[in-house]
Amino acid sequence: MDIGQDFFHRIRIVLIRTTEAGNIGSAARAMKTMGLSQLVLVKPAEFPNAKATARASGADDLLADAMIVDVLEQALEGCDLIMGTSARLRDLPWPLLSPHEAAEKAWEYRQMQGDVAVVFGSECSGMTNEEMDHCHFQIHIPANSEYSSLNLAASVQIIAYEMRMVQMLSIGEGIRQFKEILATRDEMKYFYDHFFDVMRRVGYYRPEQPKLLRRRVMRLFNRSMMTHPEIQIMRGFLGMIDTKLNEK
Amino acid sequence: MDIGQDFFHRIRIVLIRTTEAGNIGSAARAMKTMGLSQLVLVKPAEFPNAKATARASGADDLLADAMIVDVLEQALEGCDLIMGTSARLRDLPWPLLSPHEAAEKAWEYRQMQGDVAVVFGSECSGMTNEEMDHCHFQIHIPANSEYSSLNLAASVQIIAYEMRMVQMLSIGEGIRQFKEILATRDEMKYFYDHFFDVMRRVGYYRPEQPKLLRRRVMRLFNRSMMTHPEIQIMRGFLGMIDTKLNEK
Repeated sequence: MDIGQDFFHRIRIVLIRTTEAGNIGSAARAMKTMGLSQLVLVKPAEFPNAKATARASGADDLLADAMIVDVLEQALEGCDLIMGTSARLRDLPWPLLSPHEAAEKAWEYRQMQGDVAVVFGSECSGMTNEEMDHCHFQIHIPANSEYSSLNLAASVQIIAYEMRMVQMLSIGEGIRQFKEILATRDEMKYFYDHFFDVMRRVGYYRPEQPKLLRRRVMRLFNRSMMTHPEIQIMRGFLGMIDTKLNEK
Repeated sequence: MDIGQDFFHRIRIVLIRTTEAGNIGSAARAMKTMGLSQLVLVKPAEFPNAKATARASGADDLLADAMIVDVLEQALEGCDLIMGTSARLRDLPWPLLSPHEAAEKAWEYRQMQGDVAVVFGSECSGMTNEEMDHCHFQIHIPANSEYSSLNLAASVQIIAYEMRMVQMLSIGEGIRQFKEILATRDEMKYFYDHFFDVMRRVGYYRPEQPKLLRRRVMRLFNRSMMTHPEIQIMRGFLGMIDTKLNEK
């Protein structure tokens, strides 16, 4: 198992006293889309439940494997890093992390023995101060101050997404997947020679003029990192203009 | 209105042919938690709908203000930057952005006149190639390759979250400024009309042919995010070719 997969499997999502079973299903789905698998439920109001299964929509294996416990302590056994999500700022403030920073923190902990827990309170009351006492950090998901009512599964989705992003960026797996071969430097040079030659022929470009026009055009095409097939299209087009001009 | 608020209000979330009304409600809630307000629905299967309102849970003002249109073009009127979310990689790939990069791109566009559209396809079939043709970029939300079934509202949540994050991080910090004005969508449209017309006149492009050539050319220029002066250069050049062809 490569380090990325192992990282995902060691992140534990802990949901405390979830009242809506549907939210547990949605949270499982959110987790699985990002590669997370460990779900722990602390005193769920209704579970197992058909609504949870329906909402999980293919992530029901996470529900079947979910650990169900009575108190938060049990959910956190074997964890080296514990982070609690809460919108509420406490009288005695916890060290605050954004979801992105929390994912970076989790990534730093990946060579530790234990797991990383991210804890979510109930839909209505969130996490109590006593529950926050177990946490090394508080994760604060930025939100509209006039309407900060994030759905539980939406919060899980954001955290899980950031975990996946940090893993992707860290193992150097960009998302860019241009399958086309980029144009070589020579191809670019011949393309520009051709382009400015046609520009000159139609009277738009005079080589003795200041170089600004030339530079602007090159900047435009350089910026888009032209591919080999694109160069062929442009050269084909320029060639046809040449032909038409020669016919005169 | 400060620049941050204005930024949020100019981001348009466009949902195409959404089949589940509940997802529209959840999407509205996801948007509002992050400060977004503009929702456009293209041919929703069922709307307005009680399930949508229930799921919106306090974000029903966004549903009431939602614009409902028949075709995607209408939804994109007045937009200068259009990004389509799709998990599918195309035969002819679009320039891919992560949600984070998409938010950065949107932020760069904030001093433009027009809006920024982020388009989401239907739950089952996603976005068609023809719908992607309207987009400057494809947003690819990273996901578990074995289970990439993100819920529609979860996808909206991630995009909206990244929009908020980029705004938070950018305000108060040194912000990258575009010194040149970017081309508007109309300018791009007239440029393409002109470009393909000249291509047709010299016999390189036949409109009845498969659309691949057209798509390739548009992808090339869209990718470089053309500026107003660059459009002027290209239009000037094309105009001179026209003149020469007319002289014959």
